[in-house]
Amino acid sequence: MIRSAIIAVGSEIFIGSIVDTNSAYLAKRLNQIGVTVDLITPLPDDIGRMVETFKKCFSEYDFFITTGGLGPTFDDLTAEAIAKAAGVKLQFNDTAYKHIEDLLTKRGVSIKESHKRQALLPEGALLLPNSKGTAMGFICDKNGSYSISLPGIPYEMKPMFEDYVIPFIRKHFNLPEIFMEDIRFAGLPESDVDEVIREIGVPSNLECIINVSKGEIIVRVRTTDRKVFDPFVTNLIEKLNRFYIGKGDESMGEILFRMLNERKKSISFAESCTGGLLSKMITDIPGSSKVFVGSVVSYSNDVKMGLLGVSEETLKSFGAVSKETAMEMIKGCKKLFNTDIAVAVTGIAGPDGGTSEKPVGLVYTAIDIEGELEVKEHLFSGDRDAIRERSAKYVFDSIIKRLKSR
Amino acid sequence: MIRSAIIAVGSEIFIGSIVDTNSAYLAKRLNQIGVTVDLITPLPDDIGRMVETFKKCFSEYDFFITTGGLGPTFDDLTAEAIAKAAGVKLQFNDTAYKHIEDLLTKRGVSIKESHKRQALLPEGALLLPNSKGTAMGFICDKNGSYSISLPGIPYEMKPMFEDYVIPFIRKHFNLPEIFMEDIRFAGLPESDVDEVIREIGVPSNLECIINVSKGEIIVRVRTTDRKVFDPFVTNLIEKLNRFYIGKGDESMGEILFRMLNERKKSISFAESCTGGLLSKMITDIPGSSKVFVGSVVSYSNDVKMGLLGVSEETLKSFGAVSKETAMEMIKGCKKLFNTDIAVAVTGIAGPDGGTSEKPVGLVYTAIDIEGELEVKEHLFSGDRDAIRERSAKYVFDSIIKRLKSR
Repeated sequence: MIRSAIIAVGSEIFIGSIVDTNSAYLAKRLNQIGVTVDLITPLPDDIGRMVETFKKCFSEYDFFITTGGLGPTFDDLTAEAIAKAAGVKLQFNDTAYKHIEDLLTKRGVSIKESHKRQALLPEGALLLPNSKGTAMGFICDKNGSYSISLPGIPYEMKPMFEDYVIPFIRKHFNLPEIFMEDIRFAGLPESDVDEVIREIGVPSNLECIINVSKGEIIVRVRTTDRKVFDPFVTNLIEKLNRFYIGKGDESMGEILFRMLNERKKSISFAESCTGGLLSKMITDIPGSSKVFVGSVVSYSNDVKMGLLGVSEETLKSFGAVSKETAMEMIKGCKKLFNTDIAVAVTGIAGPDGGTSEKPVGLVYTAIDIEGELEVKEHLFSGDRDAIRERSAKYVFDSIIKRLKSR
Repeated sequence: MIRSAIIAVGSEIFIGSIVDTNSAYLAKRLNQIGVTVDLITPLPDDIGRMVETFKKCFSEYDFFITTGGLGPTFDDLTAEAIAKAAGVKLQFNDTAYKHIEDLLTKRGVSIKESHKRQALLPEGALLLPNSKGTAMGFICDKNGSYSISLPGIPYEMKPMFEDYVIPFIRKHFNLPEIFMEDIRFAGLPESDVDEVIREIGVPSNLECIINVSKGEIIVRVRTTDRKVFDPFVTNLIEKLNRFYIGKGDESMGEILFRMLNERKKSISFAESCTGGLLSKMITDIPGSSKVFVGSVVSYSNDVKMGLLGVSEETLKSFGAVSKETAMEMIKGCKKLFNTDIAVAVTGIAGPDGGTSEKPVGLVYTAIDIEGELEVKEHLFSGDRDAIRERSAKYVFDSIIKRLKSR
């Protein structure tokens, strides 16, 4: 097994200014190509701790990846720390400097003394081009262990990792074939999934991890042995078929988009409490214009009436958060957008606005698939974010399951 | 200085199934109350590594916080590992079991053998109530160092931390007074901010961290010395006043909501490439119905024409991504929603759909504040997410600045 570590550099992580998403991205991709991630640890911009940790990584892992600390500012110390840990000097790198100069000139930014710092790289480092920014990545070698340093900005880091680091790792290490799948369920408690997994029994050479994320349960199965992989996965899906959404690491938005696209169906939304979240989730997906026509976010009653045609009567008698309003909202949605599938959501996301009769978390969803209407009342737990996300996931999940069973 | 560590437990972190957001939340809150976070490190569900790390934390830190690993499933090992590290036994806790039983009964979930595991807690542990879920938190003491174990689900973890852990820390430790502020800028490169900070000079007892997040630069200033804090902050804001957005850790949505609410202004959106993101960002904020009326997500040309009244002529001659379309979209938006502020955004978020004339990243924004219209062409860099986020942040930032200067 090839062993690796991932280190996110930046004091901002230790004061909670940012959430480190890079490490999760890298961990997932490394696992997919058959590399084990043994250590994930953020480090502050502290040259002493950086050098100490990097030295340890050079001696304990086949390679380690750092993200961040490659910028032009005074607290960007990765190159210096890697050089010290590898026992080489920092050197002004002409290629790197030329790249920085070109990019800044193109952007009309004047070159400052600080930008020259970005061209100071460990002697002998292998450069990794950055098509999106000034910070070049680089790889250093110390006694057969590699440091791989990438920029911290995710959209600079990711293409660099995909285009240069993955080929590098494949070339330098003999990677095992990995069988890995995320199997996704919705609509049942975690403990039920756990019980089924215990019943099936986890083979000793198969790794099985349950992960709960608002409204979804994801079981990740991973092994190098195809003979145990296939039956386990088949068994699990069979036993929980009623709750099964799909495989892969597609988001619910991606699964829904794919299914709609395959079936040439269009979709539109009338959103109240989700406030644009349904629309955002589907438009997160490239190409979503093929299936998504549009939506109305009807936050005020005026918009519910004026644009969606909900009657004043209904709002007065039943309230904006009611089955009746949801049903009139979906009527308006169908009329405005004329799509195969129409959705209306109205509810109380909180934290305020709840009453004993209509508590926070009460949500009505109406989903019309080619004339077949399902209206449902929910009582979601969690905070404002969770309630909005659970509402959206319920809608996506419900459409996915109904399309599957047609 | 009180020293602490934060440990997120879960093998799912090492395979990239989830992004650990809990550690960032805890790091921020601990810093705010004057606790230094020295170590952040996720751990897999591996009893050996957990015990080893927890032992180290008991001996090196004043306290450490763990999140996750408190569930009912076979890979939830936090209680066992803490007990081993603290040198005490696991004990069936009646109070914890009663809580689990009550909650599950209320939810109509049948109690399983696995749920009993959740009541096995380290002997002598101080229980932390969980109003949102079955997993009780707990605090253990080993020679004056504390382990504080919280559930991994953010909306269970956060109230437990706020309601019980913060009072516990304040009671047991003598915390220094902290002066800390996030100062937020937009519309200039990081290197310019860095240069101004160098010019001002960072006092040795003041910590100053620059953090770049799509479309925003956040400078976090932190010290225990009020005498250096005030002049530094004043100076920095004065020197970069033109780019200054606000203080605090308010999101742009929160800042905009606050300003609109103070001024009693209403807002609506006509969104194309942002696809609901503007609406989502403002409705993320509790109480946003006071200022946000509604929006149209006009992804297809039909919706642009039918609902917003963009003319076919304009779409044919100039295209959906054009200044002209943006201007007609905003006209439609004003007519539909009749708000004080109306916004239209149309652009190419990619990755496909770009041409040499209209590349990916080309975005037009139209912002009308009580009849004063600003239409602007942008060329944003980054991937689909970044382009959408930069577009949204530009809109919010621009409205904030224009409202400030009125």
